[in-house]
Amino acid sequence: MEELEPRKVSDSKSIMTEMVMPNDTNPLGNLMGGNLMRWMDIVASICAGKHCEAHVVTASVDHVSFQKPINLGDVVTLQASVTRSFNTSVEISVEVFAADIKGKNNRMCNHAYFTFVGLDHDTKKPRPVPGVLPLTREEQTVYEGALRRRQLRLILSGRLAPDDATELKSLFFKSEDVLN
Amino acid sequence: MEELEPRKVSDSKSIMTEMVMPNDTNPLGNLMGGNLMRWMDIVASICAGKHCEAHVVTASVDHVSFQKPINLGDVVTLQASVTRSFNTSVEISVEVFAADIKGKNNRMCNHAYFTFVGLDHDTKKPRPVPGVLPLTREEQTVYEGALRRRQLRLILSGRLAPDDATELKSLFFKSEDVLN
Amino acid sequence: MEELEPRKVSDSKSIMTEMVMPNDTNPLGNLMGGNLMRWMDIVASICAGKHCEAHVVTASVDHVSFQKPINLGDVVTLQASVTRSFNTSVEISVEVFAADIKGKNNRMCNHAYFTFVGLDHDTKKPRPVPGVLPLTREEQTVYEGALRRRQLRLILSGRLAPDDATELKSLFFKSEDVLN
Amino acid sequence: MEELEPRKVSDSKSIMTEMVMPNDTNPLGNLMGGNLMRWMDIVASICAGKHCEAHVVTASVDHVSFQKPINLGDVVTLQASVTRSFNTSVEISVEVFAADIKGKNNRMCNHAYFTFVGLDHDTKKPRPVPGVLPLTREEQTVYEGALRRRQLRLILSGRLAPDDATELKSLFFKSEDVLN
Amino acid sequence: MEELEPRKVSDSKSIMTEMVMPNDTNPLGNLMGGNLMRWMDIVASICAGKHCEAHVVTASVDHVSFQKPINLGDVVTLQASVTRSFNTSVEISVEVFAADIKGKNNRMCNHAYFTFVGLDHDTKKPRPVPGVLPLTREEQTVYEGALRRRQLRLILSGRLAPDDATELKSLFFKSEDVLN
Amino acid sequence: MEELEPRKVSDSKSIMTEMVMPNDTNPLGNLMGGNLMRWMDIVASICAGKHCEAHVVTASVDHVSFQKPINLGDVVTLQASVTRSFNTSVEISVEVFAADIKGKNNRMCNHAYFTFVGLDHDTKKPRPVPGVLPLTREEQTVYEGALRRRQLRLILSGRLAPDDATELKSLFFKSEDVLN
Repeated sequence: MEELEPRKVSDSKSIMTEMVMPNDTNPLGNLMGGNLMRWMDIVASICAGKHCEAHVVTASVDHVSFQKPINLGDVVTLQASVTRSFNTSVEISVEVFAADIKGKNNRMCNHAYFTFVGLDHDTKKPRPVPGVLPLTREEQTVYEGALRRRQLRLILSGRLAPDDATELKSLFFKSEDVLN
Repeated sequence: MEELEPRKVSDSKSIMTEMVMPNDTNPLGNLMGGNLMRWMDIVASICAGKHCEAHVVTASVDHVSFQKPINLGDVVTLQASVTRSFNTSVEISVEVFAADIKGKNNRMCNHAYFTFVGLDHDTKKPRPVPGVLPLTREEQTVYEGALRRRQLRLILSGRLAPDDATELKSLFFKSEDVLN
Repeated sequence: MEELEPRKVSDSKSIMTEMVMPNDTNPLGNLMGGNLMRWMDIVASICAGKHCEAHVVTASVDHVSFQKPINLGDVVTLQASVTRSFNTSVEISVEVFAADIKGKNNRMCNHAYFTFVGLDHDTKKPRPVPGVLPLTREEQTVYEGALRRRQLRLILSGRLAPDDATELKSLFFKSEDVLN
Repeated sequence: MEELEPRKVSDSKSIMTEMVMPNDTNPLGNLMGGNLMRWMDIVASICAGKHCEAHVVTASVDHVSFQKPINLGDVVTLQASVTRSFNTSVEISVEVFAADIKGKNNRMCNHAYFTFVGLDHDTKKPRPVPGVLPLTREEQTVYEGALRRRQLRLILSGRLAPDDATELKSLFFKSEDVLN
Repeated sequence: MEELEPRKVSDSKSIMTEMVMPNDTNPLGNLMGGNLMRWMDIVASICAGKHCEAHVVTASVDHVSFQKPINLGDVVTLQASVTRSFNTSVEISVEVFAADIKGKNNRMCNHAYFTFVGLDHDTKKPRPVPGVLPLTREEQTVYEGALRRRQLRLILSGRLAPDDATELKSLFFKSEDVLN
Repeated sequence: MEELEPRKVSDSKSIMTEMVMPNDTNPLGNLMGGNLMRWMDIVASICAGKHCEAHVVTASVDHVSFQKPINLGDVVTLQASVTRSFNTSVEISVEVFAADIKGKNNRMCNHAYFTFVGLDHDTKKPRPVPGVLPLTREEQTVYEGALRRRQLRLILSGRLAPDDATELKSLFFKSEDVLN
């Protein structure tokens, strides 16, 4: 199999902007959480597809919390960046910002990590994906945290015994921000 | 404030059935993860609204993984049940099943916990929600696990120091299935 | 051709839940009749597909009346059950209930009979469908009424002379409830 | 209450054209019956609103049958005309035609009668609607048949005893085409 | 290649009616310009497909202006007619009218010229399209103006030097209505 | 009335990314022109709203041509920038790029100028909008061309006699690129 060249984060960074339409809201006039997750999944899959140069399917989404309501007519900006890859999968970080229609009241709304698997076009089986070259300090921080997030993910989906999560174990009870 | 009567799980159990339409799929012909999350959010919010007898908003979604592809034309059944409530919030368990259009190839596809906050209709501020009466053995098991899942959720959203998560700590490194 | 085993009503019963979104309503804020019919057709076709273990297409819908308005944000529950089959077609009964978002104001809204034709996957021609085993008293009542509804349907679509509708004729002028 | 001037059929005749998009079709590539009924309801309500010069809501739909499949990419033309009014309600006839994207294979696909109730804008209660002036021979034929269709509708919704349907009774067992 | 018979304008005239739904509007409750352009493109492509008896793709849209707001619940009627053809392309004129839901406040809203290219079904390459037979005086006027509009279009897309636009040049500085 | 501070182009630049879904395509599998115009209108209105810090409505769209087909599954990126403002209106330039789902076959697809009018929130009447500060050479070029494009727009919508379009007249017959 061909050796895949590692790629820069900036090569696949993807930005999506949506205006909150009536059908996206609940009866209180706020964007429904599920619609936001749908947009996050689309922009993350665009980013993953660019990085992997392949079709990708969503493998998992980490914990997402919704703290600040987003209203009808607000403009939502979603930014997706690759953080690290693991053989046939790639982790994507998605950040969500909102502002009102006049560009005021800018705020970061939430944030999540998605994992995608690259698929071979013909066999539709998983295929190797390129590595990630983290350049900036911030890119390096999220690159390093990816191992711990992956261990937590494997525990949560029942594919790793907690005792074997050595990377996670040493850090889990130190500080919460290694997880986010 | 009125004392709220605890309510049975069966009172708010909600079932939703969707047929996978072309626009719900990715170019490989599979249901996109984000569309499934959107449906999960809708059925969970219907269940939470019934239990709380109030408007509700999504507060968080725990880790979701997608293992089995769901295809164009498949029938997806989503079942949402309340598991436990905490002052102004309620945890909902959503299970996803799929079958082909002939009712064959039935399979459990995935599963997630959502948290919703009950809102007062006038002030739009959080309001107390009724307790949950777990009756069956299965209802009691997920009721008990809710405390640990809540501690993990608070850690992951940076609102609890890992060292203080006593309930979680004692169990986290014993068995993975307490988390799911 | 293989002999098809008759099947129980409960094997294919299908439940669908929808929340009324802004785009589903007319300018008065009520669910449009046509959107409700669209949902009824989807859940009925899921039920028919399960019973027939085949692709199905809508052949006809009997008289539908809309008495109670359903509002924006209401939760609509649709239940579809097979009633009887006729060579290559099957009759499905759909009942529609609504409640507000807090689970209050539960009400039965309306009801209709749909007919579907089972299609062979390859030839796309009609193919035999399994019989129905009515077990409960209610299942038997709607099973028996199916013959009369079918005669009325054939008259209304111009494929049966009214004089030949013996089953219908003997009952039509006795009581209206044999028709519903 | 003001005396309402009767109005001509041509004043409110409404034509709607839709192209069948992927999401409108079932997995066999045909327009789903429920989507067609949704379009029929929209064009019929536009026609009823014009005739009544009022908001209207769907009261009922008579028997609809679907004989000829309509395919992805086909162009569907729907024509709605008022036939007769009854105090606060109005009957609308909808005819559906289809052709392929090149304008070939023109065919009449199906046909149904809808009933709408005119609503007062402020009270949202039923209000009188204008009479219909049938001018052409065809308009007069469907105008006359409306009484019989209305009696059948009242029987089918359980609001008229079959024995009292004198208009219907005398004709029902003569010829099927008085019903269509 | 077969000689294509010129066709009458009335053979392909297409009418589309849409009701403005909540999701079609901006936060001020008016139909968004982009949604109107989408409907104009659909009805124009239906008209072009009928005239050309072929698949067509949008090649260009001329200047569109939006003068009168269209509101939620309004009924929009779009009329598309072929004006003239040029080898493999055809110009379509689209006129947009609106009225409120009661059929009152009828007004012409706007107007645009679209150009479509006919495609061969197999090669997906441009193919000759039939000529247009302008019969009425109005059809002849827009037929004649089509040459000047085409020259302006070629200049605006950079495919014709302004100096070579003889037809346009002689008329451009006389009267604006030759352009509309 | 308050004096409005001119604003930089970069302050309101807006990027939107969309994946072409099945319902966005015609029967040949290409993005329909009307859907692309709808997206262009949304991103342009977001950009205009940010620049004007006000609600905006689409006033006009200049000539748009569609040269390169965009396919199902392609990722479309739209970039909108303000070019110049005129009392109560603002011109926005939108550029459209596409790539396949693997990030390959990047291409510029088309380009258009939209004009929006800023509205006062209470009166819904036009209100003054801030000026534009063009900083880069490219921003200055499109800033200068805006006067000529505006004259052409006024002529095309019949509000300016061609003879009075002095700015346009002197340049129109020199080079086509002053118009784009």
